[in-house]
Amino acid sequence: MISLSVDISLKILGKSLGGTVLVKLRNGKLIRGLLQGYDQHMNLVLDGAEEIQSNGSSSKLGIIIVRGDNIVMVSPAMLKKEEQSG
Amino acid sequence: MISLSVDISLKILGKSLGGTVLVKLRNGKLIRGLLQGYDQHMNLVLDGAEEIQSNGSSSKLGIIIVRGDNIVMVSPAMLKKEEQSG
Amino acid sequence: MISLSVDISLKILGKSLGGTVLVKLRNGKLIRGLLQGYDQHMNLVLDGAEEIQSNGSSSKLGIIIVRGDNIVMVSPAMLKKEEQSG
Amino acid sequence: MISLSVDISLKILGKSLGGTVLVKLRNGKLIRGLLQGYDQHMNLVLDGAEEIQSNGSSSKLGIIIVRGDNIVMVSPAMLKKEEQSG
Amino acid sequence: MISLSVDISLKILGKSLGGTVLVKLRNGKLIRGLLQGYDQHMNLVLDGAEEIQSNGSSSKLGIIIVRGDNIVMVSPAMLKKEEQSG
Amino acid sequence: MISLSVDISLKILGKSLGGTVLVKLRNGKLIRGLLQGYDQHMNLVLDGAEEIQSNGSSSKLGIIIVRGDNIVMVSPAMLKKEEQSG
Amino acid sequence: MISLSVDISLKILGKSLGGTVLVKLRNGKLIRGLLQGYDQHMNLVLDGAEEIQSNGSSSKLGIIIVRGDNIVMVSPAMLKKEEQSG
Repeated sequence: MISLSVDISLKILGKSLGGTVLVKLRNGKLIRGLLQGYDQHMNLVLDGAEEIQSNGSSSKLGIIIVRGDNIVMVSPAMLKKEEQSG
Repeated sequence: MISLSVDISLKILGKSLGGTVLVKLRNGKLIRGLLQGYDQHMNLVLDGAEEIQSNGSSSKLGIIIVRGDNIVMVSPAMLKKEEQSG
Repeated sequence: MISLSVDISLKILGKSLGGTVLVKLRNGKLIRGLLQGYDQHMNLVLDGAEEIQSNGSSSKLGIIIVRGDNIVMVSPAMLKKEEQSG
Repeated sequence: MISLSVDISLKILGKSLGGTVLVKLRNGKLIRGLLQGYDQHMNLVLDGAEEIQSNGSSSKLGIIIVRGDNIVMVSPAMLKKEEQSG
Repeated sequence: MISLSVDISLKILGKSLGGTVLVKLRNGKLIRGLLQGYDQHMNLVLDGAEEIQSNGSSSKLGIIIVRGDNIVMVSPAMLKKEEQSG
Repeated sequence: MISLSVDISLKILGKSLGGTVLVKLRNGKLIRGLLQGYDQHMNLVLDGAEEIQSNGSSSKLGIIIVRGDNIVMVSPAMLKKEEQSG
Repeated sequence: MISLSVDISLKILGKSLGGTVLVKLRNGKLIRGLLQGYDQHMNLVLDGAEEIQSNGSSSKLGIIIVRGDNIVMVSPAMLKKEEQSG
């Protein structure tokens, strides 16, 4: 196995600890929260989490554990803009 | 493998023992109950469990074992508010 | 691995042997039967099993083996009431 | 691992060899056939198999190998009655 | 592990080499072809394969490799009749 | 494990290197391209790949890596005819 | 195991580091971004990522980690043209 960049996703998660992350789930839901922890399965612990609806509304979830196998992508949330083209 | 924070989800579950947790399932169902036990697969044992429907109704389930691979997220349920924005 | 409560779901299943359990499947079906056996994959053997339809009807299934990976949750069925709120 | 009842499903399958079994698949299909063999993945070999449609019709399949990971439940088919309640 | 009949599905496949098999896929498609090979994952190599539509039409596929994890069941195709009852 | 024909699918892929293959994906899409490489997970590298729509249109994809777990079947594409019967 | 071309997909990813890749997800979404890293599970780290809608619009995602098990295919994006035939 090539271990060249084997832990880059964990490295990004490590650098995001304490910061806000956006998590896109397989069920289409979008979660935002402060990253408190993670493991090698990409299970995440988020504080002050909230679910963001497609219509812009959100519901507070508090502290949550998100199972990694439900995650499509994770993004450190600093900048997130929506723009239309085409 | 980086084992830095490998067991943080289990640590959160450990601290939640005896308390109420909200469990979101892959089938979209929401379960609330007292956390009596868990294992490393995130299988949960809940007492006094009830399923919460999207319309606010609930049905009592008693003691249940929830298989971890059906779980999207788990939250210690202390505070849960709904708020609209945007 | 934290093995603290690693076998609590098996312990609950063990204590339920010979008693009635309710099994919720991934396909949404609800099965009720006498628990005759189980294994570490949560495969269950039920006797006198019946499938309970959402409209309250049921169909007898006799002895069945239920594969664990189709199970969402298992409940010792002693008490099961439905109540509406909100 | 608790191996207490680890092989009860295989034991039931073993006792059903040569007899008729009903197999419920994940795709909702129901198969009936004579159990000729099985393995620890619950792969089944059925002879004289037929698929039973929900409307009661059936189509002969002959000898088939059913992959275990498509199986929801298996039942020795001796007795199977349908009754309505509620 | 009980290895009693651990390789019966492979034995059936072995005896079917060179003969026609019907393969039912998870996506509902039905494939017919000459079995040229298989492995322990139930990956199959079929020659002269064709996909059989539900309306009876078929499209030639030539030589194909079918991944085992997409297979619901495999049948040596000698006899296949359709009959209605009930 | 019977290793009799354990690598026949890899052997077919090996003989197809440099040639055109058709790849049917789980999402129903059909991809055609020159097979540049593969591994034991059936991950494929295709050059000059294009997606073929059911209406006959196609869109060029260039070089692509296709994950093996999304593949239903792979076919060396030399001969592919469509014929109706029944 | 035949290790002949076992790491060709990792080799393609390695050569794509720093370049733009298109990633097709299981949920049908198309992501474009600069490949910053990857691992043997095909988890990808993309910078300047954006989601491309089927209508041509796009939304900026910034830095994202994409879980490999959600990926259908990855393409170095240099050339991507759409053409109709048939």
